[in-house]
Amino acid sequence: MTITRIPGDYPGRSRASIHNGLVYTVGTDPDSSPTVAAQTRRILADLEAALTKAGSGKDRVVQATVYLRDMATKAEMDAVWCDWIGEPENWPQRACVGADLAEDDRVEIVLVAAVD
Amino acid sequence: MTITRIPGDYPGRSRASIHNGLVYTVGTDPDSSPTVAAQTRRILADLEAALTKAGSGKDRVVQATVYLRDMATKAEMDAVWCDWIGEPENWPQRACVGADLAEDDRVEIVLVAAVD
Amino acid sequence: MTITRIPGDYPGRSRASIHNGLVYTVGTDPDSSPTVAAQTRRILADLEAALTKAGSGKDRVVQATVYLRDMATKAEMDAVWCDWIGEPENWPQRACVGADLAEDDRVEIVLVAAVD
Repeated sequence: MTITRIPGDYPGRSRASIHNGLVYTVGTDPDSSPTVAAQTRRILADLEAALTKAGSGKDRVVQATVYLRDMATKAEMDAVWCDWIGEPENWPQRACVGADLAEDDRVEIVLVAAVD
Repeated sequence: MTITRIPGDYPGRSRASIHNGLVYTVGTDPDSSPTVAAQTRRILADLEAALTKAGSGKDRVVQATVYLRDMATKAEMDAVWCDWIGEPENWPQRACVGADLAEDDRVEIVLVAAVD
Repeated sequence: MTITRIPGDYPGRSRASIHNGLVYTVGTDPDSSPTVAAQTRRILADLEAALTKAGSGKDRVVQATVYLRDMATKAEMDAVWCDWIGEPENWPQRACVGADLAEDDRVEIVLVAAVD
């Protein structure tokens, strides 16, 4: 079964992999915006573009993992997330944990979504 | 292919998503029990209920991710985990890492399991 | 649908689970090598052996998660990763975050790969 890669900005990894009805995609904010809200908005816009390119959408996400540099910013991230993800029929299983992140990243998001 | 959501207790995310023969589910302890052992027991009971509801079971887990607030409590979590997961034919691939967690959570567990 | 387990070195979890065209596998360095580069090389060799055993390979990875004890060692890990993963057509979706790890582990890697 074919694996399709959507290229990203960094060596050694892709923006997304598509295989057997699922797309696996990850985002960080390339502009290192100064707030968690701004980084989350940028990441979700980029992830939505990748989902669309893969033939999926934000109503087809099955699993989300949100890594936050500072868990004190969770409410700020959640407000942007909830606004983006929309109605309950779109809500994926999601984990959100605090972790150290690369460079000036305040949030990093991984999505697994259905493409069929 | 249909995605089924099992509702959870928080806005923007579900207890579980079911799609194409897999269920993705996450648990934290809503009662913020005072020990890692108690939180792990509660979470695994809730996850087992979600697996059963999805048509899966603890003998059908393919991937587990355990996030611990304090890695010094890993042995305490492992004792509860090993008791719960049972025989080697049930043992999934599992990662366990230390991460900051929301509120009074000492442990958060994500499972991916087969429903077919 | 059958789940196949590849046994590992620890109770309660397997080196890998295989189900419905995917293998889920995890590695840490059992020898606790003193550098991130050495641990990463050992882990990727072990993961490659598990992928081969499962009928997959490093050109079939769809998702990777890299946990680092110290994000200051990311460049050191990345050099080994990029050398191992090879050409862009092999590049999976990958997240890399800082997390506390068990014992003397400096890096822990989870791969999901296609076996069909």
